[in-house]
Amino acid sequence: MSELLFVVVLLLSTFAATSNGNCLSWRLSVETNNLRNWKLVPNECATHVKVYMERGQYRQDCDIVADTAVEFAKTVKLAGDGKEIWVFDIDETALSNLPFYARPDVAYGAKSYNWTGLGEWIKEGKAPANPSMLKLYKELIALKYKIVFLTGANEERFMKPRISNLKNAGYTTWEKLIFKPGAEKGTPTKIFKSKKRKELETAGYRIVGNVGDQWGDLVGDYVGMRTFKLPNPMYYVA
Amino acid sequence: MSELLFVVVLLLSTFAATSNGNCLSWRLSVETNNLRNWKLVPNECATHVKVYMERGQYRQDCDIVADTAVEFAKTVKLAGDGKEIWVFDIDETALSNLPFYARPDVAYGAKSYNWTGLGEWIKEGKAPANPSMLKLYKELIALKYKIVFLTGANEERFMKPRISNLKNAGYTTWEKLIFKPGAEKGTPTKIFKSKKRKELETAGYRIVGNVGDQWGDLVGDYVGMRTFKLPNPMYYVA
Repeated sequence: MSELLFVVVLLLSTFAATSNGNCLSWRLSVETNNLRNWKLVPNECATHVKVYMERGQYRQDCDIVADTAVEFAKTVKLAGDGKEIWVFDIDETALSNLPFYARPDVAYGAKSYNWTGLGEWIKEGKAPANPSMLKLYKELIALKYKIVFLTGANEERFMKPRISNLKNAGYTTWEKLIFKPGAEKGTPTKIFKSKKRKELETAGYRIVGNVGDQWGDLVGDYVGMRTFKLPNPMYYVA
Repeated sequence: MSELLFVVVLLLSTFAATSNGNCLSWRLSVETNNLRNWKLVPNECATHVKVYMERGQYRQDCDIVADTAVEFAKTVKLAGDGKEIWVFDIDETALSNLPFYARPDVAYGAKSYNWTGLGEWIKEGKAPANPSMLKLYKELIALKYKIVFLTGANEERFMKPRISNLKNAGYTTWEKLIFKPGAEKGTPTKIFKSKKRKELETAGYRIVGNVGDQWGDLVGDYVGMRTFKLPNPMYYVA
């Protein structure tokens, strides 16, 4: 009986490893910007993404992003004029919408959820900090960097609830906080954020680090001395 | 006895999963361009990288890069003037140096190997094709794309053996093949390749796709309509 159980466990783990392998490849293609404009987590990877997000690997991956960023931040000699900035995206970067994405009708991005629900969740202002990013934020402030939050989220609808959410989550201070005005709705993130980063540099700031969960946060112009990609296998923003 | 064996297997696999998790995070940080200028695979990830490269996941990851690239290539409407090109890097892209990196004194990048050895291996001209890339190459040619090989490898030392190696490996035709002249030795890949891609665009070519294993192949100017990052956890080229 025990031998049989042993064989079953071995067979099951081999099977799990094989199907997992495809989802590892899919996730890598997302994280390297190879795959773009995808709409939903593939059905066969729904469990993989859930396990990834909830059982520790996502947390660990975020931690290493923060550690790598701090290590780099320490190597930069600051000029002392208070003009070195670090750009943070908000959703799935400073703040985590994981409690929303964990809902059964959203299924970590494997189900076609409605955006109204996400908007309502954001307006509740209860998104927790991504703990790795809050730690990075605090260490950067201790190192005398200035913080800029730059998000493609709609200014008119979300700026107010996000400000109180950021403060409640531990992000108590910043140099600038930039949302996307409704008038720019159609502008892709890459274009909008490039323009805003250019304005920052023109105003005399020097972008040292830039962290976000979407490649649209990290490509384009004036991306900063170094970029840091956080994982996000749940959704894609153009 | 069997129950004991079962428990031991469970404990070992739990342990393996935990230490593996750190190496998954390390590898993700490499593949997302978060970690730069690293010199060696961390000691604790030597086995992880070996297993990754040799037991199927690397192959599967490369296959998905090729599939994603082909899927994109098919969506582009070609003008019919023969000017749409696809840029391939050579090392760890078109050709694989895995037989060299598998040597015990190289240990998949976990040991500090000498570059003379790598040079001698390249001059032997026996590097196999990365099968995923050879498949991509053939499908692109069937779709009427022109192929450009662009490498930061030294022209004087490596162009001749690489040409015969490419042909023997199945890459029988190309529009351009560009190596880095010795005079440009100090130029970083990103700068050198940006300049060469600009020359191609100036000459009337349109870069549709661009595939490489190093971020230096894929960032900078004129990167192409889409970039495709192949995995490489064995070494970093600035």
